[in-house]
Amino acid sequence: MSDYEPEALAGSSVGRVEKRFFTFAEPPHPLELECGRPLGPATLAYETYGTLSPARDNAILVCHALSGDSHAAGYYDVSDKKPGWWDLYVGPGKAFDTDRYFVVCSNVVGGCMGSTGPGSVNPETGAPFGLDFPMLTIGDWVEAQRMLVEHLGVTRLLAVAGGSIGGMQVLEWAARFPEMVQAAIPLATTPKHSALCIAFNEVARQAIMTDPQWADGAYYEGPGPRTGLSVARMIGHITYLSDEAMRRKFDRRLQDRCDLAYNFDAEFQVESYLRHQGRKFVDRFDANSFLYITRAADYFNLEMRWGGGSLVKAFSRAQARFLVVSFTSDWLYPTAQSRLMVQAMKKAGRDVSFVEISADCGHDAFLLPNPRLARTIAGFLEQAARERRGAAEDDCPPGEQAERGGDERGGAAPGGMA
Amino acid sequence: MSDYEPEALAGSSVGRVEKRFFTFAEPPHPLELECGRPLGPATLAYETYGTLSPARDNAILVCHALSGDSHAAGYYDVSDKKPGWWDLYVGPGKAFDTDRYFVVCSNVVGGCMGSTGPGSVNPETGAPFGLDFPMLTIGDWVEAQRMLVEHLGVTRLLAVAGGSIGGMQVLEWAARFPEMVQAAIPLATTPKHSALCIAFNEVARQAIMTDPQWADGAYYEGPGPRTGLSVARMIGHITYLSDEAMRRKFDRRLQDRCDLAYNFDAEFQVESYLRHQGRKFVDRFDANSFLYITRAADYFNLEMRWGGGSLVKAFSRAQARFLVVSFTSDWLYPTAQSRLMVQAMKKAGRDVSFVEISADCGHDAFLLPNPRLARTIAGFLEQAARERRGAAEDDCPPGEQAERGGDERGGAAPGGMA
Repeated sequence: MSDYEPEALAGSSVGRVEKRFFTFAEPPHPLELECGRPLGPATLAYETYGTLSPARDNAILVCHALSGDSHAAGYYDVSDKKPGWWDLYVGPGKAFDTDRYFVVCSNVVGGCMGSTGPGSVNPETGAPFGLDFPMLTIGDWVEAQRMLVEHLGVTRLLAVAGGSIGGMQVLEWAARFPEMVQAAIPLATTPKHSALCIAFNEVARQAIMTDPQWADGAYYEGPGPRTGLSVARMIGHITYLSDEAMRRKFDRRLQDRCDLAYNFDAEFQVESYLRHQGRKFVDRFDANSFLYITRAADYFNLEMRWGGGSLVKAFSRAQARFLVVSFTSDWLYPTAQSRLMVQAMKKAGRDVSFVEISADCGHDAFLLPNPRLARTIAGFLEQAARERRGAAEDDCPPGEQAERGGDERGGAAPGGMA
Repeated sequence: MSDYEPEALAGSSVGRVEKRFFTFAEPPHPLELECGRPLGPATLAYETYGTLSPARDNAILVCHALSGDSHAAGYYDVSDKKPGWWDLYVGPGKAFDTDRYFVVCSNVVGGCMGSTGPGSVNPETGAPFGLDFPMLTIGDWVEAQRMLVEHLGVTRLLAVAGGSIGGMQVLEWAARFPEMVQAAIPLATTPKHSALCIAFNEVARQAIMTDPQWADGAYYEGPGPRTGLSVARMIGHITYLSDEAMRRKFDRRLQDRCDLAYNFDAEFQVESYLRHQGRKFVDRFDANSFLYITRAADYFNLEMRWGGGSLVKAFSRAQARFLVVSFTSDWLYPTAQSRLMVQAMKKAGRDVSFVEISADCGHDAFLLPNPRLARTIAGFLEQAARERRGAAEDDCPPGEQAERGGDERGGAAPGGMA
């Protein structure tokens, strides 16, 4: 989506970063999953940007969406063509200002970007789990993230933030670990999938599961369900864009030709684009992880899990202040759903800011350059940090206050890798 | 979609009907297709309801959508569980009142319900055409329909009507054969597909074409791309419904269970519904026809074909009066597109009525019970018939006017098969 007109966003790159790994839940203390099965040992791939303050009060957890990973910002190597998936918003001077905050991002458990998932080796059999991998919920992901966060020495997060399925994790964090979350930033998300969302995910899963190469999930010796996964990704891509964005980007323009060829090649640019997106995805993503992650998203139901059917009750558990952001052209998680969520937060007595950002690029908007989104997040975090310092000042003598400043930066020189 | 609250619609069944066949374009006079290739001989499957008046001035052509066929109304046999696809609107006393009008519906050429299509035997090889079948456009379909209509003795249609892809045929008829169309009723349609529509069709086609059983279209000896076609149909089904319709129909209800099973079976009702729709479709539809028909819809571009890029110019060719109907929750062909079309019709000097019907059931609304739609169509046809009679009165002495009345009905006793 890099061909959107880039608008000036503040800040520079965190520079070179490294993927790290955290292994936990070693038997005899495995993670007890919501499905009733145990998982352990398990590994989370994660990255951090910026430096944890001595008072450990500046940590922000960033949660990724369906196809994301731990690589939210910066570059692994000078030859990388692209930075991390939220590099526009995470870095020195950016919305998540790594000069001030210690930002953590981990790949979800069940994923395929370094965390334990269905493609990992099952220690009991010596072969990849496949469908023997237990079903995970977003609650399970958050349990694992909590262990990582505590491992990093953080007992209370300044903020948890994320868009789409990342936003669901934010909501789950706020309800599951109320005392650990000071501020929550759910973007372009929902407290539960509508039937429409489940429907799209189900069709995508069916595309994978009906590919003969899927082989009931035991495909790791072969090529795997490449065409099924490609179709699944194409379906997803349509839902991430808006009617208007597609019109602007493609309209009915033909691909490399002036006249119709009257065959089934990719004649229109939008066809060529979708096929390309499908092919690219297959090279980097595991089909079983796609199944597990979409299933977790479909299962997610904040009001049932934490409010006995009441969203107000679920948010009554939370202690965080919230910043809810929706985008006008997001038809996957439309603004109306965010409004209902905000109403429930308010009824529950939560401090909540709600911003509907005018953007015609669809659900993907939270990943695209948007100065208003950047300013909104930065301002909200500033407020949360002030609140945190205020609380700390109330608690401890001035000499023990946390240091913070530009020289705690953990990344390379600004813009050095861009 | 039969579980929507049925509202009282007037009329009764046409009763028992029969599929007929019309073969045309015999060499050396084949149909010259827009792609430049010839097709012939070709056969259209068709049905008629009601009786053609002696003055031949009461004929209405009804055009079907993607998965429809010539069976618009009535029953083939007393054991049929369902009547034709538009039985709600076609029959004695119904919107298309077969006591008054002679209604014709034909399966499109390229289809798989009795008309010549990719599954038909290629006389040159003795084997099914498969992808050797020439690419057809909606213009080609309409050319074939014109031959059928003339074969039935009709030189000027009282009306052409249809929804979705059927509506595109209506628009094409009005521009291609201006003198043959007195009134045109395009419902829930568009003069050209948006990038979003092309995108959905392309993903559906990819689901078919990446199924190994598709075998480049030469699958007629084997089972064929059953899973690919099923996924394609599931994608389509999502686009025919609305967010709200899906919420009402399924919400997040589970299928035959109280608790989550934590596996990849169809746990939610919406999943079960979609899988069922996919499976059902495979038993009655040919995958190659799906490819050809969706391609024709994607190619359709009224303004390019008949207006050199100007929709106003395209409609300036037409002579018909128009009734354009859109539905509020149709996000495949949203009202905004219909409004643009109506503006162009008006600028072109056409007589046009535009009705946006409030319906929360999505694109499928034109197939569902809707008394307002029925009344709107009936009133518009009445007006067209009056106009036609008026013109005839101007042209010929009173004694030669066409007869019309309740006793010209061609079907069985009202309600006899329901």
